Amino acid sequence: MDSFSCSNGLQLDFNPLDSEELREQAHVVVDFIADYYREVEKYPVRSQMEPNYLLNKLPENALDLPESLETILEDVKRYIIPGLTHWQSPNFFAYYPASSSTAGFLGEMLCTAFNVVGFSWITSPAATELEFVVTDWLGRMLSLPKSFSFSGTGGGVIHGSASEAVLCALTHSALEKAAGHLPGKPPVLLTSAASDFALSPGAFDTALVADVAAGLTPFFLCATVGTTSSAAVDPLEELGHVANKYRVWVHVDAAYAGNAGICPEFRHYLNGVELADSFSMSPHKWLLTYMDCCCTWVRDNGVVDYKDWQIALNRRFRAIRLWLVLRRHGAVRLQSHIRSDVALARRFEMLVLGDIRFEVVAKRMFSLVCFRLVSGGSELNATLLEAVNATGHAYMSHTVIGEVYVLRFVVGGAFTQERHVDEAWKLIQEEADALLI
Amino acid sequence: MDSFSCSNGLQLDFNPLDSEELREQAHVVVDFIADYYREVEKYPVRSQMEPNYLLNKLPENALDLPESLETILEDVKRYIIPGLTHWQSPNFFAYYPASSSTAGFLGEMLCTAFNVVGFSWITSPAATELEFVVTDWLGRMLSLPKSFSFSGTGGGVIHGSASEAVLCALTHSALEKAAGHLPGKPPVLLTSAASDFALSPGAFDTALVADVAAGLTPFFLCATVGTTSSAAVDPLEELGHVANKYRVWVHVDAAYAGNAGICPEFRHYLNGVELADSFSMSPHKWLLTYMDCCCTWVRDNGVVDYKDWQIALNRRFRAIRLWLVLRRHGAVRLQSHIRSDVALARRFEMLVLGDIRFEVVAKRMFSLVCFRLVSGGSELNATLLEAVNATGHAYMSHTVIGEVYVLRFVVGGAFTQERHVDEAWKLIQEEADALLI
Repeated sequence: MDSFSCSNGLQLDFNPLDSEELREQAHVVVDFIADYYREVEKYPVRSQMEPNYLLNKLPENALDLPESLETILEDVKRYIIPGLTHWQSPNFFAYYPASSSTAGFLGEMLCTAFNVVGFSWITSPAATELEFVVTDWLGRMLSLPKSFSFSGTGGGVIHGSASEAVLCALTHSALEKAAGHLPGKPPVLLTSAASDFALSPGAFDTALVADVAAGLTPFFLCATVGTTSSAAVDPLEELGHVANKYRVWVHVDAAYAGNAGICPEFRHYLNGVELADSFSMSPHKWLLTYMDCCCTWVRDNGVVDYKDWQIALNRRFRAIRLWLVLRRHGAVRLQSHIRSDVALARRFEMLVLGDIRFEVVAKRMFSLVCFRLVSGGSELNATLLEAVNATGHAYMSHTVIGEVYVLRFVVGGAFTQERHVDEAWKLIQEEADALLI
Repeated sequence: MDSFSCSNGLQLDFNPLDSEELREQAHVVVDFIADYYREVEKYPVRSQMEPNYLLNKLPENALDLPESLETILEDVKRYIIPGLTHWQSPNFFAYYPASSSTAGFLGEMLCTAFNVVGFSWITSPAATELEFVVTDWLGRMLSLPKSFSFSGTGGGVIHGSASEAVLCALTHSALEKAAGHLPGKPPVLLTSAASDFALSPGAFDTALVADVAAGLTPFFLCATVGTTSSAAVDPLEELGHVANKYRVWVHVDAAYAGNAGICPEFRHYLNGVELADSFSMSPHKWLLTYMDCCCTWVRDNGVVDYKDWQIALNRRFRAIRLWLVLRRHGAVRLQSHIRSDVALARRFEMLVLGDIRFEVVAKRMFSLVCFRLVSGGSELNATLLEAVNATGHAYMSHTVIGEVYVLRFVVGGAFTQERHVDEAWKLIQEEADALLI
């Protein structure tokens, strides 16, 4: 090998992945992370930093020379952690959860370590086949129709996100039917409180009739189980019957709420999925697997190389992470996790209902409560939200449902217990007291 | 919290992310991984398994009850590792590398641990701002024009893959120009040996003239620095001048070879990038950062929320991984890594040139050598490739350049040293001996 000199005597024919150096330094980082989890409750949930806080602190250019791990970890403590909004805090109740667990962490370590690019079977047979195995396992836990499994005519794939899943389903459909809709925005059918903000099969049918009359070819419906705003559930069965009449491809996006389908008492929300062509849900949202793990099933496979089921050519070995989660917890513990979160959300709903200054705005679905102060409209509610979030003791987000500004309280963190929900509610009441004087 | 019973007495109100359990088990997995890296050279590089090997070994359904980490790791050894094609083996010379390092591994651990969803600034300010910082650092290391940096008018983003980068650039361009090309396949201009398989600016100009004459609006060019087949480099400067005449958006995909741009002696391949609108390269291919880390720069920013720069709403904190790599190695060691790999490829090229039975088919570019047996055509060369790969001692891939079947030998693994290249060549010669008797 050519050797290279460096004026300061720095060793340049280094081994960037020496196994003993990895062993030593990874142990240091494990302890750093375990300490972070132990302490995470103490940090402000929503970062209290101002824009450009970090840009002003880090050097403008990379250094030419190596720095020590200790220096870098010191900077993580000093500069990065204060700039995090802590999604793993037990007091994080915003958006939907970014779910995590020790099993998921260990699975991700293995995925990273092997760093195989599983775009085709031969580039690492285990990566492809384990993905067959775990998507079949999870499909069975969700009681998906057998046609969605590899032991049937279909099968599952792990995408990075629900958006990628929709895009892939759309592309599949679009290519097949050579429709003239694209590019441009897909038509949106509005929902209302009358249907709990779910899509109306009648309105869908009417829209299809109008499309056909206008000479268009409708080809794709994205139905949702658990919308982003209010976790509303579209009636899959009725929509499916309408769609099938017109041979429209039905994709069901159940990113968050689909996870609940592993519990028999929530499975009925997925009824009608047997009329769909594809279905996706994200274990990274509620099944303790860390980002990016969105499982997507189709009824009809026909290919074996996963590169043809996704956008990118590269592919991480995400299946091993999901495999660890399913094995370390087993179905019963995962069900218990879902049920516990739903019970905590129900508890929060009860607390809200017990205070006449507040109202619950949409039917509570799964572990999401949409609520607000009855008086004061958007402005006062937004002020209350900011007051709560600015304390750093809890973090919620908001949405607008049927033109009404509402606060969203979602339970789903691995560390969240009853006391965190109770304390968050107490905090909300106190901030409301201060505003309503 | 509601409590749940389980007939076998399993504890159900568990903490899936207990920090002490994580500490204990992550240490076990660190040792498992360090052992894997120490042993990786001993495994067959290309998995020697047959299709369905794993499907036949794992249970058809997930278990209801938890299993121990020890049991699972035992299964990783027994079932997963034999089914891996080991991209981290020092004898992996196929495709392009999936580059890794201790620094990248530690960065990924932190990314996973924080598990923040950085789709907007407030969801974790550090995630957004550190991405500003590291893409500016790397852009400067590549001597990109200042207009591609946040300190200029543009900025960088980390995508999961080069495909996502192209898709985002294309969408940006398509939306702006409302072109009528989509959906459908983009036109492909053929290259030839005469231009070292690079795109000809003359042919491009002619195609644009024809498009306009046909009433079409050309709007997008994807130029490549380091093609998948032969690492050919399109002449960015000439293509840029033609494209700018027609106001065509130019995206430069330099996924693999762009990494070499951090070395002054290779920077000239990027000359003309100042005429492009967007540029992407993947540190996960050659800068030791593990998958999925594709940096993309645009000349014109205007938004701060990274969700608008990508397909998915979710976002991993990939910037912290790249940050660790840049800091732990510094520019000089990363340059040294690139130079060392190129020197090893040059050495391999010399070995090939010294054996009259072989020829080098395309100009060696960066760390890729395209070569073949002179006699016997595709069939004999394919037989040779399979003979080499079937030994498990080295793994190469193939491509077809100008209708000629060739073998590809790429250097890029963190563990690869001179002796691995020499032994691979010896093996190739031995297998050739056996075939050519």
